[in-house]
Amino acid sequence: MELLDKLKWRYAAKAMNGQKVPEEQIDQIIEAISLSPTSSGLQPFEVFVITDQEVKEKIRPVAWNQSMVTDCSHLFVFAAWDTYTEDRINYMFDLTNEIRGFKNEGWENYRQQLLQFYPQREAELNFQHAARQAYIAFTNAINAAAFLGLDATPMEGFEPEAVDEILGLKEKGLRSCVMLPVGYRDAENDWLVNLKKVRKPLNKLVNRID
Amino acid sequence: MELLDKLKWRYAAKAMNGQKVPEEQIDQIIEAISLSPTSSGLQPFEVFVITDQEVKEKIRPVAWNQSMVTDCSHLFVFAAWDTYTEDRINYMFDLTNEIRGFKNEGWENYRQQLLQFYPQREAELNFQHAARQAYIAFTNAINAAAFLGLDATPMEGFEPEAVDEILGLKEKGLRSCVMLPVGYRDAENDWLVNLKKVRKPLNKLVNRID
Repeated sequence: MELLDKLKWRYAAKAMNGQKVPEEQIDQIIEAISLSPTSSGLQPFEVFVITDQEVKEKIRPVAWNQSMVTDCSHLFVFAAWDTYTEDRINYMFDLTNEIRGFKNEGWENYRQQLLQFYPQREAELNFQHAARQAYIAFTNAINAAAFLGLDATPMEGFEPEAVDEILGLKEKGLRSCVMLPVGYRDAENDWLVNLKKVRKPLNKLVNRID
Repeated sequence: MELLDKLKWRYAAKAMNGQKVPEEQIDQIIEAISLSPTSSGLQPFEVFVITDQEVKEKIRPVAWNQSMVTDCSHLFVFAAWDTYTEDRINYMFDLTNEIRGFKNEGWENYRQQLLQFYPQREAELNFQHAARQAYIAFTNAINAAAFLGLDATPMEGFEPEAVDEILGLKEKGLRSCVMLPVGYRDAENDWLVNLKKVRKPLNKLVNRID
């Protein structure tokens, strides 16, 4: 399966060379993000795609000074909704009705269920839930990069509040949760590039109940 | 890109027909799960693959009575570590040294950093972090199913504590966070199968900082 080949090929690049990725490839990564499934179809996150070198340089010191932040081509920052609001839920349900061309009673009942549940729930719980959805899109961005032969570095090592401040996320009701520098490896300066991928034996990972 | 084709093809099947998926295909889904990247390589979750019909029937009522739980071929339940412990961290670092065949000072320092950080942190925060990693593997399970032409239903609609009880997860230091019935669609009884995929326009999803 081609997916398995790509998952074996990819690794978390620890050094990049600054070369630029063609915009049509970035568009394909964005399409993979957009097509990712999310809970109730709400897509409760936004993605920031940064090429501005000054902004990347501001982020690097709050990201453990990791060189890929500035030496990547495009820095993807995934920011989840800080909570679920009525407006955010209604937007997606209205859009669904518009795209599908009809209103459906079951679907409208489901809208009411969500409206009565999420906006009343603690914002932190809603954010944690939204962040998980962002991770689905994040995973597909990693995968799309691998299918394009691009390197990428899944990155949680940063101070979210500092990144939120740099990108003005609080005013938008967003909180950064994970980043992905995308670009080309600098193999000579990458300590990880030639090391074996390490995974638990399957009997420590999978339990069969047959 | 083949990944985009598969992301467009897949949907969340809302009815399945009980047909069995060949075991060699299940093995490929498991391989995709195993190859998924995780934070610090810790793979902080386990996956339960259930074909036992009695167990599926126990889970269905605590999963909003969704028919796919019993009518799927294999029910995948993703359960994240309830917290990070010294043993769990040391296991993965020791395994890494064993597989790569050497000890490295930088890596050992990183082990100490994690040992000083995670086990001291509130269990709930650690679980939320581990759950995000489980979502990476969950996403790749969805993708692998699509590459195999299998249907799957990303499913958060269940009572985690009840599923934990049925599978005896608490004793194992695990908490269920998401499920994935895998099988074959029952197109005649599936209200979603012919409806258009709905996604936000890209300008509501993506912000470019150039």
